[in-house]
This record gives sequence, structure tokens and C-alpha cells, in this order.
Amino acid sequence: MDERLKKQLDFALEVDKEKNIFRQTHLSGHGRNENDAEHAWHMALMSYILREYSNEPVDVAKVMLMCLVHDVVEIDAGDTYAYDPEAHKTKKEREEKAKERIFSILPKDQRDELIAIFDEFEEGETPEARFAHAMDNLQPMLLNNSNDGSDWLEHGVSAEQVYGRQRSTALGSHKIYEEVTDKIIKEQKKKGHLK
Amino acid sequence: MDERLKKQLDFALEVDKEKNIFRQTHLSGHGRNENDAEHAWHMALMSYILREYSNEPVDVAKVMLMCLVHDVVEIDAGDTYAYDPEAHKTKKEREEKAKERIFSILPKDQRDELIAIFDEFEEGETPEARFAHAMDNLQPMLLNNSNDGSDWLEHGVSAEQVYGRQRSTALGSHKIYEEVTDKIIKEQKKKGHLK
Repeated sequence: MDERLKKQLDFALEVDKEKNIFRQTHLSGHGRNENDAEHAWHMALMSYILREYSNEPVDVAKVMLMCLVHDVVEIDAGDTYAYDPEAHKTKKEREEKAKERIFSILPKDQRDELIAIFDEFEEGETPEARFAHAMDNLQPMLLNNSNDGSDWLEHGVSAEQVYGRQRSTALGSHKIYEEVTDKIIKEQKKKGHLK
Repeated sequence: MDERLKKQLDFALEVDKEKNIFRQTHLSGHGRNENDAEHAWHMALMSYILREYSNEPVDVAKVMLMCLVHDVVEIDAGDTYAYDPEAHKTKKEREEKAKERIFSILPKDQRDELIAIFDEFEEGETPEARFAHAMDNLQPMLLNNSNDGSDWLEHGVSAEQVYGRQRSTALGSHKIYEEVTDKIIKEQKKKGHLK
């Protein structure tokens, strides 16, 4: 088999491991923990359906690709829970190492392209990255809201912490932040599911 | 909340159920059964990485979207194993009903758009649909090959059956069919993992 195709298939097989990286979020219906591959699929599909609410026009193919690859690094670095400040101190370093190893399985041009997409997401400074972050925030919130805030309750999360994280949702979509995020936080706080 | 956004979020929550639809394929490393959401994520990412091997130029955003939604109907219709001729007799009817129910949760324009994408995949008559089918075939084959053909062994599948199914891979990508599919089948047959 030619070397380029072999590298691409090696990468395809390597990323299969993302299905074994579990998150703190639970599936709707009080289901099991969700894994990174499922989360990425859900975000990518939601970004297509909800793209009309992006604050700025976006190249939706780029947003979908960003969603699909944004957690590949967690194969090595593991999932870092949104409300775990200790783990966040080492997140960047763990993920940078993982990024180099995993994307370097690809041919050089695709390695460079996917690292650029990954970095663009991380930096959050383009319309596509901002909208992808809004989806990264909205997707677990929808599941958690459908489960009566059980993930927040389990970790004793406060409304203030959720507002802190969700600031980036407004950067991607004012409409979603105001109509969905803010309403969910207020309602869950009222119900006592958020401190 | 406005009616349109509410419908879109209801759809986003409904498709979460796809994570509970398990397939016959096992994850690499002799892992657990794979679910439809993971399979769709993997296919969508592979379609981006491997798009250069499509027989015809493709709109990769459309291919990715097709991959993301092609199994949504299995939420109601269940997974139909590729080598189960009895189940295939009722597949079309089960999936048509599911398609109507699930996509109709969306606003009318998006319902029509996603049904069109779903139908285009099913009909397999455009470059995008042909390439998405090649990915739908290649993705489980890669996993199964990495597991010494254990899924084929478990179901007593023959090389002839696999060749029958993989004809559609060649319609999407001669290169992948010749360099990957055909070689894997020959090798697995030689090892006695395919009848």
C-alpha cells in the first residue's frame, strides 16, 4: 500500500480510541456517561442545524470539522472536567504533547492542516471557532438540563461557575446564550440543582 | 423561546438516543460493540481525511453531513446487520417510518433538507452518496481487520458475502477498494477468518 494512504488509515484507526474517553456528562434519560466521539458527533450535527444563530457568518464545513477533531487529543491527555480548576492547570501541556503525537500519524500536509484547525478552535478567535465553542458548551448543557441538572448536582457546581464557562457561548451566539443558556441556568438554580 | 429554535433543540435532544443503538462491529483492541453515533463520527472524520480518493470530486461538507445523519433512523428502526438477509426484507419500511417521525421534529425547511440528504445517501447516485457509502463500508472493515476479523468469524461470514457488500466501495473509490478492501478480504480469507 502506498505510504500516504497507510498513514491516513493508521490515523483513522488511532482515533478509534476516542470512543473510550468518557466525560462527566450523562446521556439523556439518566443514561451512562457520554464519550468524546459521541460528544463530537452531536456537536457537529448541532452546529449544522443551528448555524443560523451564529453571531457572524460561518463556513459550516470548517465548524463541523473543528467539532469532529477538537477532542482527539484527549486520547492521550484524558478528559478535563469543565469545573476542575486543578486539572485545568496541566491541561494545555498534556494536550500539546498529545496533539503532536496523534496528528503526526497523518501525512505532513494533513498533520499541519488538522493542527491548524485544532489550534484555531483552542484560540477561539475566528467566527468558526467561536461558534464551535458555543456548541461545545450547549451540547452537554442540553443533556444535563434534560437530566434535571444531575451532573451539576453530583459535582456541587454553582450558577456562577456555569455563567463563567458560558461566557464563550455568547461570543458565538447571543441568541443561544439569551434564549437557551441563560434560561436554563436560571431555571436550574431556582430548582436548587445549581448552587 | 421561539418555536423554530425549540423544534431544533427538540431534534438535538432526540438524536441523543442514537448513542444507544449498538452495532455488530467491535471497537479496536477487541473492545465493546460500537454504537451508531460513534460510527457516524468516525465515518465523517474519515471522509474528510480520505476525500482525495473519491472517484469523482465531492462537496466534502455534504459528505460529512450525510455521514452524520445517515443512521438517525435507527433510533426507531434499530440496526440491521449487513449480513442478515431476513432483517433486510423489512429494513426499508422500518426506516421510512422512522425518517418521517424523527426529521419532522425539525422546522419544515430543515426537515425537508435533511430528508433529502438522507434519501440521497440511500439512493447512492451522486458522487457524495457514493463516497459516503465507501466510508460506511470501510470504517467497520478497518475495525474488524484490526480485531483479526472477529466480527466475521462470530457470524460465519464468507468472503463472497463481503465482496457483495463491498461492490459499493468501488463505486465511491476504486483506490480504496483495490488498495484496502480487496487486500483485507484476501488476507482475512487466507487466515481463515472469512469462509
